Amino acid sequence: MSMDMTFLGTGSAYPSPHRGASALVLRTEGECWLFDCGEGTQTQLMRSQLRAGRITKVFISHLHGDHLFGLPGLLCTVSLNSNPDPQQSLNRVDIYGPRGLRHFLRVTLGLTGSQLLFPYAVHELEPTADQSPEEGQLGPEMTAESGPPHPQEQPGRTISLDTSGECYLLFEDKKFVVKAFRLFHRIPSFGFCIREHDRPGRLKTERLRELGLKPGPLYGRLKAGEPATLESGRVILPSEVLEDAIPGRKVCILGDCSSILGQGPLTLCSGADILVHEATLGNEHREKAVDHGHSTPGMAAAVARACCARRLVLHHFSQRYKPSSLQKDGDEDDVSELKRQAEDALLDSGVDVTLAEDFLTVPIPLRR
Amino acid sequence: MSMDMTFLGTGSAYPSPHRGASALVLRTEGECWLFDCGEGTQTQLMRSQLRAGRITKVFISHLHGDHLFGLPGLLCTVSLNSNPDPQQSLNRVDIYGPRGLRHFLRVTLGLTGSQLLFPYAVHELEPTADQSPEEGQLGPEMTAESGPPHPQEQPGRTISLDTSGECYLLFEDKKFVVKAFRLFHRIPSFGFCIREHDRPGRLKTERLRELGLKPGPLYGRLKAGEPATLESGRVILPSEVLEDAIPGRKVCILGDCSSILGQGPLTLCSGADILVHEATLGNEHREKAVDHGHSTPGMAAAVARACCARRLVLHHFSQRYKPSSLQKDGDEDDVSELKRQAEDALLDSGVDVTLAEDFLTVPIPLRR
Ligand SMILES: [Zn+2]
Ligand SMILES: [Zn+2]
Ligand SMILES: [Zn+2]
Ligand SMILES: [Zn+2]
Repeated sequence: MSMDMTFLGTGSAYPSPHRGASALVLRTEGECWLFDCGEGTQTQLMRSQLRAGRITKVFISHLHGDHLFGLPGLLCTVSLNSNPDPQQSLNRVDIYGPRGLRHFLRVTLGLTGSQLLFPYAVHELEPTADQSPEEGQLGPEMTAESGPPHPQEQPGRTISLDTSGECYLLFEDKKFVVKAFRLFHRIPSFGFCIREHDRPGRLKTERLRELGLKPGPLYGRLKAGEPATLESGRVILPSEVLEDAIPGRKVCILGDCSSILGQGPLTLCSGADILVHEATLGNEHREKAVDHGHSTPGMAAAVARACCARRLVLHHFSQRYKPSSLQKDGDEDDVSELKRQAEDALLDSGVDVTLAEDFLTVPIPLRR
Repeated sequence: MSMDMTFLGTGSAYPSPHRGASALVLRTEGECWLFDCGEGTQTQLMRSQLRAGRITKVFISHLHGDHLFGLPGLLCTVSLNSNPDPQQSLNRVDIYGPRGLRHFLRVTLGLTGSQLLFPYAVHELEPTADQSPEEGQLGPEMTAESGPPHPQEQPGRTISLDTSGECYLLFEDKKFVVKAFRLFHRIPSFGFCIREHDRPGRLKTERLRELGLKPGPLYGRLKAGEPATLESGRVILPSEVLEDAIPGRKVCILGDCSSILGQGPLTLCSGADILVHEATLGNEHREKAVDHGHSTPGMAAAVARACCARRLVLHHFSQRYKPSSLQKDGDEDDVSELKRQAEDALLDSGVDVTLAEDFLTVPIPLRR
């Protein structure tokens, strides 16, 4: 199954003509999951090779405007451009994010009279008090869903920290299990861990032929991990005829943060194929970065090292860092310096470093 | 006093890479007034020659997302890029628009933890029931300002239709009087009439010298329209020494509409130097346009003719109409056809027709 990730916006704080506001798409066989949706994301999507109509799930790391202000417009435009064939009911869009997101969508879609051709549900993560300074926490009066639900809103879940105190289980299906974990930022912020299930190895067709087993239903049972009994009465165990399991991929996408809460998330993200981490300012601005709830390349590298990630992708750069293609000789604030800083911190670690740019697509191959 | 208008977005329904969502700036001597603020307006502003920090007033014609979704982000970015010098308190931004706008800003700025370095006030226009179909009207539960005001929100006015039943007086200052009037659209929509005050003509300096009057305070009194008494006792009336008054300019900017409510707005807009009117679809799609609460070039032209406007500027084009610069031979939906349709309808009327494009600046010279 092919899998890749496309960055639609790599700038922090606000969108600019050379860096969009935060948004990236994880794509698996045509289905698109959107992570954050800053203002202008719908236009960035149109400029990319991706199709907005393929978005089935949206994950919002935190409620800062540079990660959220594009969401109402994106939903409206997806609806406008979708097939209004009443025969073909459109799939529901599931939206995950911090408490307050449901109210945000109700009010923005409701006051603007925005009707959608598809249903949506907002599943809210319940933050804890230690995720942000007190002034960054939303009082109950701010999220008191006073108005009626939007006509296309379906009931969503409220998801609390699991009993281990380490993470939030967003969902599990045949292909993936997706969890969230807590970050420290000016307001409650979350990271997401997308884990693909391991898949059984390929059938050893030579061996099956030796055993006298012809292609048929028994092949499927063995592949599914069940033993098969031959006419002779001989029982064949899957382990005899299956190659090694294909390990599922792990993709970890962190929202804005100056740190991660607890050790649990490091274990959760352990061995990630891709770890996406913000690097708003260079190491020389570490104090300022932390004051604003942000990270430097050195801090992102430390997380990647602790997780033994295979690849660290940096994004969410201050708008002072122009894309390399627009960099001129003598410009201060060279974004490639951010990459060097992360690489320096990861010497001999085996972690590769990638600098995201708008419209960069990073393939996520199966491990061989 | 110089005056011009710059279109930041001329597309309808949603922003695209070739047409931004609705927004235009009326500029008078460095002060900028923003009319509508679709998603991406802040980025369009950065691409233009205008400075977002100069925006002192915002007018929202109606609450559809393609006219509004850019406003919270714009306010945040203006604040981020403003001088945080606590000595220099920043001017308040006054925002005018339909009922519901105050709640929209409270919730979007509040839930995203957006602090502004300047105060703002929302002055709401009270729509009437005949401005839209019933399903387009906001029930009181939708605009029940349940949460606390935003920390930077100052009390705003609620403005009702004046006793004549024709218009809303937004404000009057030394230079301008600004009124709004009702349009018919899917949801309550308004037009704005900006009328510059007439100014006294220049002093006839020859004549003053003949009368023996030297430059000094009496010049100022005469210019201000007051009589002046010479030492001889002779009284000079302003009319004796002033050239003809300089007529103020009139700029009329209409929101989305399929018609105007009543005759009052036509009188209000009479003789407009510039009338900005939407033309979402060509004349051949008139039925569809009206069904959706929109206008064709022919309908816009009829309004311009009824107002005896000097210039009609068309904007808010369906995204099917590419800008002329991107038009290829054989493309259907040629935007210049919309201009021809308006011109045909205005033959011999003396009304000039301009097709707006993103970043087009239209000068608004004084009448000579
Ligand atoms: Zn951010
Ligand atoms: Zn943030
Ligand atoms: Zn519109
Ligand atoms: Zn509209």
